[in-house]
Amino acid sequence: MRDAYHEELDLLTDKLVEMTRLVRSAISRATTALLDADLALAESVISRDEEVNATFADVESSIFELMARQQPVAVDLRMVITALRMGTDLERMGDLAVHVAKVARLRHPDSAIPAETRSTIVEMGQIAENLVTKAGSCVASRDVDSALELEQDDDAMDRLHRRLFRNILAKDWQHGVEPAIDITLIGRYYERYADHAVRVAGDVVYLVTGSRPS
Amino acid sequence: MRDAYHEELDLLTDKLVEMTRLVRSAISRATTALLDADLALAESVISRDEEVNATFADVESSIFELMARQQPVAVDLRMVITALRMGTDLERMGDLAVHVAKVARLRHPDSAIPAETRSTIVEMGQIAENLVTKAGSCVASRDVDSALELEQDDDAMDRLHRRLFRNILAKDWQHGVEPAIDITLIGRYYERYADHAVRVAGDVVYLVTGSRPS
Repeated sequence: MRDAYHEELDLLTDKLVEMTRLVRSAISRATTALLDADLALAESVISRDEEVNATFADVESSIFELMARQQPVAVDLRMVITALRMGTDLERMGDLAVHVAKVARLRHPDSAIPAETRSTIVEMGQIAENLVTKAGSCVASRDVDSALELEQDDDAMDRLHRRLFRNILAKDWQHGVEPAIDITLIGRYYERYADHAVRVAGDVVYLVTGSRPS
Repeated sequence: MRDAYHEELDLLTDKLVEMTRLVRSAISRATTALLDADLALAESVISRDEEVNATFADVESSIFELMARQQPVAVDLRMVITALRMGTDLERMGDLAVHVAKVARLRHPDSAIPAETRSTIVEMGQIAENLVTKAGSCVASRDVDSALELEQDDDAMDRLHRRLFRNILAKDWQHGVEPAIDITLIGRYYERYADHAVRVAGDVVYLVTGSRPS
């Protein structure tokens, strides 16, 4: 049986996994809001970011309590330190989903997404969801091999990001500057979201092995 | 006289202040590289980011050692936790200066900065430097009032960021989509740089008062 101290550490892991679920749902809804110009869905992403922030505040206060009361050492110390880092990344992923939703809201009832960029955005949304799902599993399982795989998925995101720029810079781009700005920012938000998911997975590697993936 | 333990905590502060100096120099050089289309200067920002990363690695290992060996409590525990957070923000500010420098490098020998955006970029660079200088002073002095002032300077950055969008979206914008993308990303980099500087100052507030500015 786990003692009370290790049960608290497990609870910390549970909260981080919960954060991955919340920010996964956020980017999923933000992508749909963007693709369907769905104002209500965009608003739901924006208002429900509060849940992500509250869960992170909860993670932070658990960490401080644990540290002050239990003075963890070795792998337990690594656990609380990386939990703080993971929480910071996940909280940021929630913000990035909100940024995507805000572009959808800003352009409503129009779509922010010109037809020729649509399939790229669909794929970026899928990879973002895929990355955060995997990151969540890694946090729960502490599986180093799966955590290392996220780098490859992130390469796919980088390729899509470059494709998005080619879409905007194509000779037949007829939408002018404003949609180009929107797409530039949206692309950046997905790319950063993916980077933070990879960092969460990198922290799992660090937690288990004591060194970060290169 | 300070004991060895508190000397270590002071040394941690010194390293964080050193990081603020490094990332201040980085954004200063990146801005000049951008304005003057100076390739050598852009390259220096990119290659010297290694110093920022090395200093952060040093901060991280000091923190782990301190925690494992000294098991700090109360304000000292807050100090090491916030040091980790500050280091993460400062390391990211170094990356953002590198991103700015890379745009300068990409467009060299041309300038990435159309004439009508120039004065806005000059001001964004100045505010970025100003913010990180103040953040560094706050880290050294732990002065809560100065730390709270950074929010206002960040409002100035947000205003410039909006002015930059007005520049790109003006009816007489004749540079087409590619420079608009560059300026959109550059604007985002400065704005994020400023946000991270404000977070560092917010951590000083947290360190001293135990609660974060709203």
